[in-house]
Amino acid sequence: MSLLTVGSVAFDALETPFGKTDKIIGGAATYITLSASYFTKGNNLVAVVGGDFPKEMIGLLEDHGVDTEGLEIVADGKTFFWSGRYHEDMNTRDTLETQLNVMEHFDPTIPESYQTTEYLMLGNTVPATQKLVIERMAKRPKLVMLDTMNLWMDIAMDDLKAVLKLVDVLTINDEEARQLSGEYSLRKAAKVIMAMGPQTLIIKKGEHGALLFQADRIFFAPALPLEEVFDPTGAGDSFAGGFIGYLASTDDISFDNMKRAIIYGSAMASFCVEKFGTERLINLTQEEIKERVQQFVNLSSFEIV
Amino acid sequence: MSLLTVGSVAFDALETPFGKTDKIIGGAATYITLSASYFTKGNNLVAVVGGDFPKEMIGLLEDHGVDTEGLEIVADGKTFFWSGRYHEDMNTRDTLETQLNVMEHFDPTIPESYQTTEYLMLGNTVPATQKLVIERMAKRPKLVMLDTMNLWMDIAMDDLKAVLKLVDVLTINDEEARQLSGEYSLRKAAKVIMAMGPQTLIIKKGEHGALLFQADRIFFAPALPLEEVFDPTGAGDSFAGGFIGYLASTDDISFDNMKRAIIYGSAMASFCVEKFGTERLINLTQEEIKERVQQFVNLSSFEIV
Repeated sequence: MSLLTVGSVAFDALETPFGKTDKIIGGAATYITLSASYFTKGNNLVAVVGGDFPKEMIGLLEDHGVDTEGLEIVADGKTFFWSGRYHEDMNTRDTLETQLNVMEHFDPTIPESYQTTEYLMLGNTVPATQKLVIERMAKRPKLVMLDTMNLWMDIAMDDLKAVLKLVDVLTINDEEARQLSGEYSLRKAAKVIMAMGPQTLIIKKGEHGALLFQADRIFFAPALPLEEVFDPTGAGDSFAGGFIGYLASTDDISFDNMKRAIIYGSAMASFCVEKFGTERLINLTQEEIKERVQQFVNLSSFEIV
Repeated sequence: MSLLTVGSVAFDALETPFGKTDKIIGGAATYITLSASYFTKGNNLVAVVGGDFPKEMIGLLEDHGVDTEGLEIVADGKTFFWSGRYHEDMNTRDTLETQLNVMEHFDPTIPESYQTTEYLMLGNTVPATQKLVIERMAKRPKLVMLDTMNLWMDIAMDDLKAVLKLVDVLTINDEEARQLSGEYSLRKAAKVIMAMGPQTLIIKKGEHGALLFQADRIFFAPALPLEEVFDPTGAGDSFAGGFIGYLASTDDISFDNMKRAIIYGSAMASFCVEKFGTERLINLTQEEIKERVQQFVNLSSFEIV
């Protein structure tokens, strides 16, 4: 089945304890579509960039099977830019600069050919924009997944709550789950959040794995302990892309298949952090993904006798 | 097979966001032997208490099959006392008071009948004392497991390194693994620590589960997401007791069996935190343990198709 991803395509400048980059390609939708491209064939993108966005990068997305008809190019505008510096522990970072540029007036247009896409991934952006996208689809997708962040809980909670009523799967991190629910226990937080709309909740815990909640069911997916985390940028989006890409490719949204999808998503995130930016995501092979998923199986399987 | 636990038997006074206790029974060896008692029959204890230690509690340990011949009672001494206050997040705590009392001159005597015990658990205490215990065994046990803490890395690192050369399994938390190894990545930390002596390393991550390392193998055991953590005191020791108790009862120290043992240990820890102190650990049934372990299976099992 086809997938539509809506979100940012951007320039990032990163500093980690391992070095720093000039402006490189980033943005939630970039990581999501690249990651999903290893699973699903119909991979549609709605985003906006400025005239400064390199044609080669659009070509690279297309080489990965991403349909860029929905990628709006504002010729006299500048692409969204974010720069940040990671701390020694790689789990926390400071934003050094944010230039919204063309994202400030992003008014997503869904091309005709995308209107009946079955799987919809709303990358982290303004909640009101995410809601507009759902309303602009000719047909309600089979599955709508949304990523968000603490910023929107601080400045646009009402809009966020309005869009949450319309989605099937929400993905946030543990601190955000606590903020959104007002509960410290993640199990209690999950109940509160699922009552806000999403039937399925994924709580991402970075190096500590991820939790999948749906009604009374819980699944805990481990993260692969890595020798080195080189650059965590995009890990959450690579995870989301692998998750929904796998669901779309199998067209099975049962809880058991979501468990598998989380493992594939976790595998994609584990690749992402091995190099700067999207570098590791653009040259993966199916064989590497298969081997990585087998590492997750080895990591977490046991038998009670 | 029989198990010998050496460590503290103590009084604790606890404050958590849910309330506070008067002096209640605590100590690493108390939690370890109680937890292990659900698995192994030969459950020997070497520890020291003062004349103020209640006879009923010794009776309670004996009711759980703990052999207390090795429990030294210093009639005119006072029992080790610790009091602490947990923060809102339940992951951090402040020590309010520590009175070493009879623990200050703890000189462990191993009774004749314990001398050939096959499984030895060294609860967290002075590293030099832990080393003495190993040296005083008539026969080197089949498996020696050691728990320690950051305090000994701060004030007795040489003694700690000396005893680490003699043990098979080390259990510490993630921050302690980083301190001991000087490596941030737990995977790198594990290599450094295993080169110090222990062939097997368990890194406890509290609510984030536990990692088991042995040579190139890694196993990740989840923690059960709980609605409420009532009192985390003794969780690590209940975990250790369940782990080594299960190994002793099955007398199988293969990696696959250690994976099972970690799940049993995690189940015991999940019971421990449900009530104050040892309260939950003293009245468990085999049926409850079986059900809890099944919850871990449900939580972490998936199938790649």
